[in-house]
Amino acid sequence: MPYYKLTYFDVRAMGEPIRFMLSYMRAPFGDIRVMGDEWLKMKKNVPFGKVPILEIDGKVYHQSAAICRYLAIEAGLSGDTPLENLIIDQTVGAFNDFTSEVATMFNTQDAQLKENLRKTVIEETIPFYLSRFDRQIGENSGYLANSKLSWADLYVVGYSESLPAIFTPLDPTNGYPNFQKLQERVRSLEGISEWIKSRPVSFL
Amino acid sequence: MPYYKLTYFDVRAMGEPIRFMLSYMRAPFGDIRVMGDEWLKMKKNVPFGKVPILEIDGKVYHQSAAICRYLAIEAGLSGDTPLENLIIDQTVGAFNDFTSEVATMFNTQDAQLKENLRKTVIEETIPFYLSRFDRQIGENSGYLANSKLSWADLYVVGYSESLPAIFTPLDPTNGYPNFQKLQERVRSLEGISEWIKSRPVSFL
Repeated sequence: MPYYKLTYFDVRAMGEPIRFMLSYMRAPFGDIRVMGDEWLKMKKNVPFGKVPILEIDGKVYHQSAAICRYLAIEAGLSGDTPLENLIIDQTVGAFNDFTSEVATMFNTQDAQLKENLRKTVIEETIPFYLSRFDRQIGENSGYLANSKLSWADLYVVGYSESLPAIFTPLDPTNGYPNFQKLQERVRSLEGISEWIKSRPVSFL
Repeated sequence: MPYYKLTYFDVRAMGEPIRFMLSYMRAPFGDIRVMGDEWLKMKKNVPFGKVPILEIDGKVYHQSAAICRYLAIEAGLSGDTPLENLIIDQTVGAFNDFTSEVATMFNTQDAQLKENLRKTVIEETIPFYLSRFDRQIGENSGYLANSKLSWADLYVVGYSESLPAIFTPLDPTNGYPNFQKLQERVRSLEGISEWIKSRPVSFL
């Protein structure tokens, strides 16, 4: 098995889908968590200045969805046909549209603008996306795509581990029972349940 | 060959990568261009309320990168190994981070905020991303990934057909010679050159 080294901030967010994938695969991995000055120093040497990055046998890769799609092949979590993969990919793409709106809000510095964005995300963005994912899970035997477990489930649930902390005291998944059942299902998968018990405590 | 029907606005932008892929494949396709009230009426029935969507034999798919990745298999524009596909995917993912910042600016209604965003995109976002893509092309024999033509090239060049109109009178690709050479290379591919000659004139 290759040596995997993940570098990300000391939060779950966009790093957690990769940690879920590697844990599900029972692949030992370095879990480097950079902060503050250390990150500012390394940022300019990181492709496109963004983490997470994953080193595979010493070579650096970026973009969490691209990395999870790659790991899925070894994990047995890809689709069985090109059309099944298209359905997985469009789901992850739509979820990234959602996380991108959350990130824009989260990264906004101006307090008034941030408060306005938070209101829009809570009142419009979350109901829009989560109701659609909830329905999709209801129509796919409890999974996001193709009525079976895929890397889309680990990706969406992995990122969603940060949602309650981002929107505290609100848990944005409340009111979406199929989504919450999927979260429980993924969290209790072998490999992932052990990871959740042993992972570092982080504020997000 | 299946029947393909693309639905998008009457612009190039995020629809053009799919049109490039289908043209390269010499696949006849419906090229539906919706506007104004017609779009508002259909929006609520479109998955996640966004176009482009592509119908393949009557079934609707969404997310342009997911669609192009799928078409690439038939087009022979995927990577030859999982790692080659990872390199293609991370490139498209980084390019989507770029297009997402352009879209945020483009869709901003408030005139002052839009002008501020435009300044940031021109002075920071464009040099940041295009210099990195330009270097990557220089290191990959004139292509974005794996030193050979892939769907990443059609995706990036297809979307970039709208950049000069978005930033008029500025052409954001000026000063990035490898990027511009890639544009010429993709535009002159068989199938795509015919599409460019015959495609509808649009403002973007």
